[in-house]
Amino acid sequence: MFTMKLCTMKPKQEPARIVRRALAPLIVLAAIGTSSVADEGMWQPHQLPDLSAHLRQLGLEINPENLSRLDQFPMNAVVSLGGCSASFVSPQGLVVTNHHCVYGSVQYNSTPENNLLVDGFLAKQLGEEIPTAPGTRVYVTEEVTDVTSDVLAGVIKSTSGIDRYKAIEANRKSLIADCESSGNHRCGVSAFHQGLEYFLIKRLEVRDVRLVYAPATSIGKYGGDIDNWQWPRHTGDFGFYRAYVGTDGQPAEYSEDNVPYSPASFLEVSAKGVEDGDFVMGVGYPGGTNRYRTTAEVENEFEWYYPKARGFREDIISIINENSTEGSAARIAYENTLASLNNYSKNFQSMVESYGKSDFIDRRTQAETDLVEWINSDSQRREQYSPAIRQLEVLIDSNHAAREADLVRSYMGYATLPSAAHRLYRLAMEKQKPDAEREPGYQERDLRRLRQSMQAISRRFDETVDKATLSYLLSRYAELPEQYRSQATDSFFGISSNIDQGQVDQIIENSYAQTSLDDEATRLAWLDSSVEEFENSDDPLIRYAVASYSERMTLELESKELRGQFQRWRPEYMEAVIAYNRSLGQPIYADANSSLRVTFGQVRGNQPKDGLINQPFTSLEGILGKDTGLDPFNAPTKQLDLIRAGQYGDYALPSLGTVPVNFLSTLDITGGNSGTATMNSKAQLVGLLFDGVYESIIGDWDFDDAKNRAISVDARYMLWVMEYMDGATNLLEEMTIVQE
Amino acid sequence: MFTMKLCTMKPKQEPARIVRRALAPLIVLAAIGTSSVADEGMWQPHQLPDLSAHLRQLGLEINPENLSRLDQFPMNAVVSLGGCSASFVSPQGLVVTNHHCVYGSVQYNSTPENNLLVDGFLAKQLGEEIPTAPGTRVYVTEEVTDVTSDVLAGVIKSTSGIDRYKAIEANRKSLIADCESSGNHRCGVSAFHQGLEYFLIKRLEVRDVRLVYAPATSIGKYGGDIDNWQWPRHTGDFGFYRAYVGTDGQPAEYSEDNVPYSPASFLEVSAKGVEDGDFVMGVGYPGGTNRYRTTAEVENEFEWYYPKARGFREDIISIINENSTEGSAARIAYENTLASLNNYSKNFQSMVESYGKSDFIDRRTQAETDLVEWINSDSQRREQYSPAIRQLEVLIDSNHAAREADLVRSYMGYATLPSAAHRLYRLAMEKQKPDAEREPGYQERDLRRLRQSMQAISRRFDETVDKATLSYLLSRYAELPEQYRSQATDSFFGISSNIDQGQVDQIIENSYAQTSLDDEATRLAWLDSSVEEFENSDDPLIRYAVASYSERMTLELESKELRGQFQRWRPEYMEAVIAYNRSLGQPIYADANSSLRVTFGQVRGNQPKDGLINQPFTSLEGILGKDTGLDPFNAPTKQLDLIRAGQYGDYALPSLGTVPVNFLSTLDITGGNSGTATMNSKAQLVGLLFDGVYESIIGDWDFDDAKNRAISVDARYMLWVMEYMDGATNLLEEMTIVQE
Repeated sequence: MFTMKLCTMKPKQEPARIVRRALAPLIVLAAIGTSSVADEGMWQPHQLPDLSAHLRQLGLEINPENLSRLDQFPMNAVVSLGGCSASFVSPQGLVVTNHHCVYGSVQYNSTPENNLLVDGFLAKQLGEEIPTAPGTRVYVTEEVTDVTSDVLAGVIKSTSGIDRYKAIEANRKSLIADCESSGNHRCGVSAFHQGLEYFLIKRLEVRDVRLVYAPATSIGKYGGDIDNWQWPRHTGDFGFYRAYVGTDGQPAEYSEDNVPYSPASFLEVSAKGVEDGDFVMGVGYPGGTNRYRTTAEVENEFEWYYPKARGFREDIISIINENSTEGSAARIAYENTLASLNNYSKNFQSMVESYGKSDFIDRRTQAETDLVEWINSDSQRREQYSPAIRQLEVLIDSNHAAREADLVRSYMGYATLPSAAHRLYRLAMEKQKPDAEREPGYQERDLRRLRQSMQAISRRFDETVDKATLSYLLSRYAELPEQYRSQATDSFFGISSNIDQGQVDQIIENSYAQTSLDDEATRLAWLDSSVEEFENSDDPLIRYAVASYSERMTLELESKELRGQFQRWRPEYMEAVIAYNRSLGQPIYADANSSLRVTFGQVRGNQPKDGLINQPFTSLEGILGKDTGLDPFNAPTKQLDLIRAGQYGDYALPSLGTVPVNFLSTLDITGGNSGTATMNSKAQLVGLLFDGVYESIIGDWDFDDAKNRAISVDARYMLWVMEYMDGATNLLEEMTIVQE
Repeated sequence: MFTMKLCTMKPKQEPARIVRRALAPLIVLAAIGTSSVADEGMWQPHQLPDLSAHLRQLGLEINPENLSRLDQFPMNAVVSLGGCSASFVSPQGLVVTNHHCVYGSVQYNSTPENNLLVDGFLAKQLGEEIPTAPGTRVYVTEEVTDVTSDVLAGVIKSTSGIDRYKAIEANRKSLIADCESSGNHRCGVSAFHQGLEYFLIKRLEVRDVRLVYAPATSIGKYGGDIDNWQWPRHTGDFGFYRAYVGTDGQPAEYSEDNVPYSPASFLEVSAKGVEDGDFVMGVGYPGGTNRYRTTAEVENEFEWYYPKARGFREDIISIINENSTEGSAARIAYENTLASLNNYSKNFQSMVESYGKSDFIDRRTQAETDLVEWINSDSQRREQYSPAIRQLEVLIDSNHAAREADLVRSYMGYATLPSAAHRLYRLAMEKQKPDAEREPGYQERDLRRLRQSMQAISRRFDETVDKATLSYLLSRYAELPEQYRSQATDSFFGISSNIDQGQVDQIIENSYAQTSLDDEATRLAWLDSSVEEFENSDDPLIRYAVASYSERMTLELESKELRGQFQRWRPEYMEAVIAYNRSLGQPIYADANSSLRVTFGQVRGNQPKDGLINQPFTSLEGILGKDTGLDPFNAPTKQLDLIRAGQYGDYALPSLGTVPVNFLSTLDITGGNSGTATMNSKAQLVGLLFDGVYESIIGDWDFDDAKNRAISVDARYMLWVMEYMDGATNLLEEMTIVQE
């Protein structure tokens, strides 16, 4: 599923440039003529007017200019949930997204006695709508402003890595602070083209979000992890939230007095739907792509990082499963974590497999050779670009040495309580500084979210699982050469070159027996504690956090120095890439970065393998063929009966002769696009993007028009389930459903 | 792969009838109009004139009458290898079949130093052709005669089960003895329609068969067990034998003086091949189908037998693998056994899965209900048929009690040395009787084959594996209730209700240490020994064979009594089925029984699942996509290079733009059809049938036009491999290859 990685595992590399040159338009459309070119690309809204003619030719019926204006339909109907995309589908703030995007909130409200994961949930009226998991937000993008010169103010060529990093960070924080002054917005400064451009993105932050409707997991997650990234697919991956605001119409914390938010516009839902070959587009928030990385980075990622990281994920999955009985409260607490671990384990495996089978690295190497040749064939270009090529190579090399240690540390976050202790102590330390100087994540603007994450632990934690996870992670940590280990960690857990796992486990056992961090009130109290109180604490996990702090900070500083150096050279490298592509007449869009993007294409099947064709639609009857009665192929009996009875209602696709369930399209999407409305040429909702086919996973790095296919749940299936399975008549009446 | 089960696991039920009524023609073609009806059916050659009009309409260009005459082209170009089908493709007795049909002979000639399985084998001239595995035969069907009345001579209604069985057996043996008087033929009496008809089948038995050519296993078995029963497929499943005879033109044992056999006709090979939708037919020897079994039998097979038998197979596979290192002489010895075990383990699993998903049992139950209603709706029919319905039900029920014991005993044959001992002693016992009274398999006509099977053990046996297999089988045997256990076996291996496996293993250890049956000369000597010599032997396995003999005979007698009773009632039941189908205008063909059959259909893909299409052809480029470099996806480097270079020669299919590798068709085939020539409308060879898709495995019981697809290796791929990979120019010149 295309949810974003919830746990970011690599340092964000946000580079800077010294001199902001006046750039020629980044997009050159001369070469666009075939739909195969057009299907690749996650376009920034402001780029779309340049694509107008092409969009009209493809079949877009609304004014393409509208797609560039965030205050116009359909753009202002599209929202972010932070990690997922979604859309308003009623004037009363009803939001539709994927089932797997509301899954955390369904899980949050589930107990063994009242398991909403199994049964699904439907509020038949507003008063029955229930709070979502803490931290759930609806973000409405209101403004996107080019702030490149502001971000790079004060940065010059000779600035050191760490100073560059700090300057950019300070400029960003200042821009963000100004932007958020209303108290109702969440702002961010995003790098585009690896730091060649920066945009300030201002989003209204709706903080009272309620769960309205989620079908049973046996519909919403039909096929489960087995079908994940697969076609044919029969997943009813949809669910509904509602955005609430205060009676003044402004965002507010949850209150019984709050009222539904009135969006500026909303999407109509098409009951007619799409047909093979029809124009579709997706407007959403793709998380991240890597379409412009160097050969060395590609090799490191596919030949080292993905295989290693997959190993960690598989190990942690095993540990969670071995330490929690199926159906137990412990397992329910970890369902969300398991889903995320599984999702990207499969993703990484497919990445490696696809890489092994494709000629991607050969093509990338060739492209890099061509770029260098193009640069070297002209003395001015050589002078302008070759330092960036060379320096970036040096930086990437220097980044290799500590990669093993970086990886181990990145997975340490799966040990919940120690990780909470580190964050709590860090907060106390940061609070000693003025707000503007604090590390992002620990500023006043972040405290509400930090508090909610400390609350959420109560429902996402089990002591037995957490201890076993920590034990495993420490065993992996202990394999690191001494220079990459932490003295505080070695000392606290009694680790040396010869680890005695039994002794380490005993220390873990004692620490968890003595800590109070498993208590929610205690965790919340630490949010307001002073550094001195931490230093005087007897809680073993707090003591460990205090003891390891200075080593952590040293590592962070080293990392920032490196990131500052990347910020120096990446934008220049990217400028060369863009100039080179421009010389070839190739269109250029920026890598995805969680900002609002538009992708367009067609409903279309493909040939995943020699001798095999993926048809564009699956159908209700396919559920009968797939169903085994066993999870995850255990559709409700009522559903099987309805299908056998041919109860299609008005939702059949004539050419298919039955109700379509999922469909394929050429839309260019990635993690974060989950829940994105698939729209027809009139910008009506015809489906919800939720996944890609197995062969398209490598698309984050290398888009292949023949292989990349996005999977949407068909709006007709959603409506069919709502009407015939769940009787969600209140929502069907609330939405605007169009037949033509 | 569609090889027949080498180890027959169920008693052959060959029923008889008392009164031979004059039957109306069994085939009623009124209902045949669509190709979907025509594609089902394994037709006896004599039935084909009745299908003439339909065959011409489908596109057959040769005279359909020819297909009914065994002495005419193309029928006399088609041969049996006993378990596989094959065809003559030159006037010098060159025979083409599947790679997996010559696999045993390739394995037989392989050593760790000279591993033909890995490297393949090509004789560039006659003198380089090497002997095949002992017992390899080429059978040319010369005559098929209706002998129903002869077989049932002397049988009356009141005859008891055992007497009926013996009478039919005696009649059959007498017919066979007459038929084989030349000394050069192998004859058999086959039951059709479950004993409603019997035919005497006379086949010339060519005993000197040599291995001519087999591609490397990385081509011939590409995809291995992983791809077995799968589509898309890229297997070069072809290989060549040559039939040799004495200088007098008559079959003879191997001799350097022998000369190639001159067949009456041979097939031309088409380099033009077929296209999607083209007419194809297959002429071969399908082993067995069960399209007319009762509901109770179907349920027993799918809900009990297949799951249980699959368990045995998986267990034995594990034992062989655990007790032989990959690539060792031991493993090579068992490759053939493993292939067969794997093949049917997968087959059984698919049977059970398909059964669970399909409505087969519902339809079968309905059909049985309809049959009974049709019978009961008319008093004459009720009088004529209802006893058979009732009695068959009783017999099937009574067969259930001992099924567990029957299954265990059927798998005991996988313990090679004890099984050899039993057969050797049985031979000594049988030899005391006149030849005509001996059990089939122990008559003079069988001795050569028995001798060869004793020789073959030397290359198909490893002591460690055999001991472990026996230990496993005895542990399963020990689970049987005492009434189903053998006193001799319990006593010899020290088994009681509480088995001490360590003690049993010690007895096995001692027995194998002391036996001389692992020595080929010793085994062959026992072929000529007297009963007294057996009884005086100190060889522990011989002593066990002697001690357990009388219990075995008792079991055999009980089994024959039951079979005799089935011979009483099955034909009458079948007569009712035929009469009922005739009343519906449904065409009737007999279940497959290893006799020569013709099936016709079209090159055509299908939809295996909702949302997925199997295309009719795979291509060379698919090998690039599938190849991992690891067995079984390790095509030779030379092949990958040729494909990358687009070296298609004259073998490309224009609509595909490349060389087709395998193709799908609607031909109705089963185990035994392996190696069957897929012929075009001119009866030219366009492919070799070698497998079916996963969804068609249940086709042995229930033909579904939408699901059943046969897989052929395309003749163009065969020719491509011969020309570009292996340089088999001598064979390309010997064959008649036609371009149009």
